[in-house]
Amino acid sequence: MNIPSYMTEVGQRARAASRAMARADTATKNKALSLIAAAITRDADQLRAANQKDLDAARANGLASALLDRLTLSDKAIATMIEGLQQIVALPDPIGEISNMKFRPTGIQVGQMRVPLGVIGIIYEARPNVTVDAAGLCIKSGNATILRGGSEAIHCNQALAKLVQEGLTGAGLPADAVQVIATTDRAAVGAMITMPDYIDVIVPRGGKGLIARLIEESTVPMIKHLDGICHVYIDDQADVEKALKIAFNAKCHRYGTCNTMETLLVARAIAPQVLPELSTLYLSQQVELRADEDAYKILQAGAYPHLSSATEEDWKTEYLAPILSIKTVADMDEAITHINTYSSHHTDSIVTENYSRSMRFLREVDSASVMVNASTRFADGFEFGLGAEIGISNDKLHARGPVGLDGLTSLKYVVLGHGEIRE
Amino acid sequence: MNIPSYMTEVGQRARAASRAMARADTATKNKALSLIAAAITRDADQLRAANQKDLDAARANGLASALLDRLTLSDKAIATMIEGLQQIVALPDPIGEISNMKFRPTGIQVGQMRVPLGVIGIIYEARPNVTVDAAGLCIKSGNATILRGGSEAIHCNQALAKLVQEGLTGAGLPADAVQVIATTDRAAVGAMITMPDYIDVIVPRGGKGLIARLIEESTVPMIKHLDGICHVYIDDQADVEKALKIAFNAKCHRYGTCNTMETLLVARAIAPQVLPELSTLYLSQQVELRADEDAYKILQAGAYPHLSSATEEDWKTEYLAPILSIKTVADMDEAITHINTYSSHHTDSIVTENYSRSMRFLREVDSASVMVNASTRFADGFEFGLGAEIGISNDKLHARGPVGLDGLTSLKYVVLGHGEIRE
Repeated sequence: MNIPSYMTEVGQRARAASRAMARADTATKNKALSLIAAAITRDADQLRAANQKDLDAARANGLASALLDRLTLSDKAIATMIEGLQQIVALPDPIGEISNMKFRPTGIQVGQMRVPLGVIGIIYEARPNVTVDAAGLCIKSGNATILRGGSEAIHCNQALAKLVQEGLTGAGLPADAVQVIATTDRAAVGAMITMPDYIDVIVPRGGKGLIARLIEESTVPMIKHLDGICHVYIDDQADVEKALKIAFNAKCHRYGTCNTMETLLVARAIAPQVLPELSTLYLSQQVELRADEDAYKILQAGAYPHLSSATEEDWKTEYLAPILSIKTVADMDEAITHINTYSSHHTDSIVTENYSRSMRFLREVDSASVMVNASTRFADGFEFGLGAEIGISNDKLHARGPVGLDGLTSLKYVVLGHGEIRE
Repeated sequence: MNIPSYMTEVGQRARAASRAMARADTATKNKALSLIAAAITRDADQLRAANQKDLDAARANGLASALLDRLTLSDKAIATMIEGLQQIVALPDPIGEISNMKFRPTGIQVGQMRVPLGVIGIIYEARPNVTVDAAGLCIKSGNATILRGGSEAIHCNQALAKLVQEGLTGAGLPADAVQVIATTDRAAVGAMITMPDYIDVIVPRGGKGLIARLIEESTVPMIKHLDGICHVYIDDQADVEKALKIAFNAKCHRYGTCNTMETLLVARAIAPQVLPELSTLYLSQQVELRADEDAYKILQAGAYPHLSSATEEDWKTEYLAPILSIKTVADMDEAITHINTYSSHHTDSIVTENYSRSMRFLREVDSASVMVNASTRFADGFEFGLGAEIGISNDKLHARGPVGLDGLTSLKYVVLGHGEIRE
């Protein structure tokens, strides 16, 4: 297969399909989504068989068991895909929404209309459910999409692609609106990230290494985040009970997620009060603590068994593991400065009962999600009420934070005139 | 001067200043803007003297007279700068606006807060008024800015920078919030577009060649447009009087602007009715017409003196001159296809009395500004009611169309909790 010419053809077909998708009305898009859900239900056995092929090949290649887990299309994963599609059907259609139509002194009326971005490229690892989730969100938001899943999932992704395209054509939409790349050749990824004429935005979903490489080489804008170095700051006017609950939940609810706390900041005045109790909670989960000098003394006095001294490197590290760095600070100003210096601008939370500080923290912390008295684990499209999530953005331009349907759209200006000309 | 280390220092100072700007309240920012206006009024003579130095050097270097015109800081230009600052004072402060705060079933309340982007880099040609306009918009939107004006205006820009910084410090804001690059070395531009750690977005203002080069090399996101190939489509159900007014105004109001019509599309059924009258109007301005076969026949029958046959190249050309390409089309579908193929996605307008077609045109034309029965010349921040304009974007991500204060901001998520944790 000649990859550049294959990818150009895929791109051209996607661009053509995107015009039809932009025109499609809500009922048609919902019909396609429902037909896809029905086809997945009908062909579940075939999907499992295709997935088995992928799993056999992956085992033969010695894939790690965690990756095998993610690659597995369990009954529950199939049910979740179908439920996800039904949820997307239920979401309001963002396309065509007109806002702020105002008359100008010249007589024209000016406002904005929400429109699809066009063609979305999605590059992801070996998780077959992403194929259906991403296709569903792109269909509902009136975009065409080009999907490039992990090569280990190629059989299952191809089988899913067939069902998605069956749903599209069943609703009278072009099959090319969702194309799954048919090759595992890595050159296809290189082509995708350098065809701005055919792809309007790339959403990479995967490890930090993959995304860093894509950023380096991409000439197409991306909706992405590299990592989640999230903070909880326990203020000296915190409600201690809330502080304990939040600091424990933000670290221990799940270790591998990007909205997990990696560094705990504690006001020096309250540290002796909260750290001993908190360490009891962390000990129940065998969490390793890396503490600055003041925190170290307190934890050492309590004989915390998994304790070491934090270094500069710890403030910059996303552990994704039962490890937590702890730093004591003089006050909220020092906490905000630390966060704005070391945070990955993903999610940071303050625990305080002080009104003025809560307002300042919300305004001055420069992160995609800023919270008061809540666990960082809430930074998630579903928890925020977006209905579904195509990814998370730590960037400031375009979408920021969890990205739902609206993040796959943009606003254009619309002008309603009556023959006006500019004098 | 060591350019890389100088630029790194400028970037670090801007980043530090951006924190203070993000915190600044409306009254403080407005005070700075008013102080700058007062300082310009007070030091108008010194500004003219600095400008004279630039003009003398430019004349000695044989600068073209059009460029000398743009470089000249006339009394009117000074008055316009002051008026511009006063208008920015009068604009509502976008920063801190909180929207869509909604309770979620978990108990947290989630919404969005409008915040500054951080540090804006502006690269522009030898127009001293841009220095003050851009500084004013960045101050009001709570951003720090690094300005790199054309080297021909260096003396005037340095003099303006001093006054801007005087206004900032007079209001208690950091002088580093507006820095004008002190060197004419082009390496400074290369440094600006490759320091994403210190600059969040670049706004290039200049010719297509400059911007194309910057896009090629920039690793910082840009708010920009390359060109304006704008269309007016005269539908066969157009009101002929409106069509004549709009098609004449869109071409002849000003030739050198990006929202000027470059290609006129006419439904074949109405072409014999509108083209002869329209050509009389164009003849009054000696507009050269490049017509497709059908339009050519009609215009030739009227003995239009400046007539030639359009080629494929004409559909792709931004003339910025009294030249217009004309294409006849079977219907609106063909017009939309032509526009979506050849338009620079800047501004396109339909003239029609048909309701359904007007709605379809608005939705299906994929441009930053789409109009019904209005001249493309209205695509402008002031005409759209944004109050002022930092630039125009033809891109789909982030800001699209004329970019005002809001385009220099982004939305972050804010969460108000009461001790909630994720179960």
